[in-house]
Amino acid sequence: MSKYILDFDDYMTAEAEKRGISKPQELYEPINYLLSLSGKRIRPLLSLLGCAIVSGGHRAALPAAAAIELFHNFTLMHDDIMDKSAVRRGQPTVHEQYDTNTAILSGDAMLVLAYESLLREAKNVTILPILHTFNSVAIAVCEGQQMDMNFEQRDHVTEAEYIEMIRLKTAVLLGGALKIGAYCGNATDNDADLLYQFGENIGIAFQLQDDILDTFGDQATFGKRIGGDILNNKKTFLWLKAHENATENDRTLLHQYAAQQPQTTTEEGEKIAAVTHIYTKAGARAAAESAMQSYYQKGLIALQKIRSNEAEALEILYIIADNLMQREV
Amino acid sequence: MSKYILDFDDYMTAEAEKRGISKPQELYEPINYLLSLSGKRIRPLLSLLGCAIVSGGHRAALPAAAAIELFHNFTLMHDDIMDKSAVRRGQPTVHEQYDTNTAILSGDAMLVLAYESLLREAKNVTILPILHTFNSVAIAVCEGQQMDMNFEQRDHVTEAEYIEMIRLKTAVLLGGALKIGAYCGNATDNDADLLYQFGENIGIAFQLQDDILDTFGDQATFGKRIGGDILNNKKTFLWLKAHENATENDRTLLHQYAAQQPQTTTEEGEKIAAVTHIYTKAGARAAAESAMQSYYQKGLIALQKIRSNEAEALEILYIIADNLMQREV
Repeated sequence: MSKYILDFDDYMTAEAEKRGISKPQELYEPINYLLSLSGKRIRPLLSLLGCAIVSGGHRAALPAAAAIELFHNFTLMHDDIMDKSAVRRGQPTVHEQYDTNTAILSGDAMLVLAYESLLREAKNVTILPILHTFNSVAIAVCEGQQMDMNFEQRDHVTEAEYIEMIRLKTAVLLGGALKIGAYCGNATDNDADLLYQFGENIGIAFQLQDDILDTFGDQATFGKRIGGDILNNKKTFLWLKAHENATENDRTLLHQYAAQQPQTTTEEGEKIAAVTHIYTKAGARAAAESAMQSYYQKGLIALQKIRSNEAEALEILYIIADNLMQREV
Repeated sequence: MSKYILDFDDYMTAEAEKRGISKPQELYEPINYLLSLSGKRIRPLLSLLGCAIVSGGHRAALPAAAAIELFHNFTLMHDDIMDKSAVRRGQPTVHEQYDTNTAILSGDAMLVLAYESLLREAKNVTILPILHTFNSVAIAVCEGQQMDMNFEQRDHVTEAEYIEMIRLKTAVLLGGALKIGAYCGNATDNDADLLYQFGENIGIAFQLQDDILDTFGDQATFGKRIGGDILNNKKTFLWLKAHENATENDRTLLHQYAAQQPQTTTEEGEKIAAVTHIYTKAGARAAAESAMQSYYQKGLIALQKIRSNEAEALEILYIIADNLMQREV
């Protein structure tokens, strides 16, 4: 895996240096700031692997991988404003470090830079499928974010609605990253679609796992506070399954807890413990794990259909999928 | 002119209807709301004319013209948040009518829809120059907006900096609209560049005229309140020319007025009258009119170099440029 990440980091460093001497600095510095907090770089890695699997080399997908990373960070910059998040990867978010106007405008510029990066090694024959894929991913992410905000205002959300929201908000970008990378390696539409299906299904499984870990995870390995979703009254898969299957009494309790704002750490702990207990009783955790397994398997089936001589790159995709399932609960 | 605008409006109406049944409505409705306040549509008209001048027909540029209009309205949606503007075209701005999160996210979606529209009638051979032009316009507009915000924090701005700011924020989009339209009609790079130069120079002249009208215009025809720039302490071309050429005493007065916040309508009127008087005394109005004439002429010279059989479309460009100069002072 390291050779891909190393090449990607080299590419991004060179691009950051160019932005570092671009004017006005007030526009470009916040972009470099957010990118320097470097996350897991899983999405650009998927683009490089998609290219390697179909063509034997990953370098043709470096500008597209950069585009995917720019796009992902653009969504983080704007989502953090909308969600009023003060911290990202342990550091102040852009609108905290600078201000909201900066986060709006630098985010806009970042989206344009993503498109410009997509064109960098574009050949006439592959640019249209690449751009169409990118556009549908980008619009899906906006739709998913809007659905997520809508859900906060609603009393209930169905399982189908919830899966559609996380598909749009999270999973299509993982699928799209693979598909775009594959097109950079001149993939057939069939291979590009299979890689997309792997990415999308693994992405849904990943988000369901995240829901489970947020409530049932181990504080030390999860990174975020356990029970955050419960305190924020998020309508996660666990919540909606519990809402569906709980006794009448427990369902009433769920609504009461959602309406209640704990004032002390003790009250917070009590709310988390009580709601977690209802989730378990109602079989919500088991239902989430079962759904997650089902999407995970669908992803693997798509991957197994791909014929490639690039055993190493393919193996890394299996490892990524496997690591996801092994995250400690 | 009317056949172009009619075709464009038909195209936009059909697109708005598609968005009207897209989900989630919370994302798409604000886009249709802002577009329904329809401005002058000068930018998409330029795209259609650019195409007609080089190819004899304008319909191939309809999706690109829509992309230009979507892009322009995306910048309005986000600029209105940044500038805390409550009214746009006589109606509440999107962040007032809905909320700030909506204006951020629907704006983002609008930018993506602009790119998608650009691809609509794209042929492999023309899509790369079209997209490169669009990207450089889009990044320029972000840079111009950032410079404009920077200037508010600064004591002084040079003429060169000011011209560069309005070039980036306003003029490149007019030039880009023409150039992209021309590429839709399979223009040579030379014709596309000449049309760009016309648009950019006319754009700078247009903005200078706007500065003049804001202070010296006729309230009834200008639409906005006369003296708004002075009350907002904007560092316009008039301000920086006055600052450059005024007597020491008047320069001190300019700074005092900029630091002063009028409390009553009478005080506002006094500030406007006093600063306007300094502008006139320092020859700022004459300097602005001379600069405007110079950019206007540069634009016309570029236009005269274009060989086209489409006398009617070409004539409309001259009329647009001429109307600009005839706006009443």
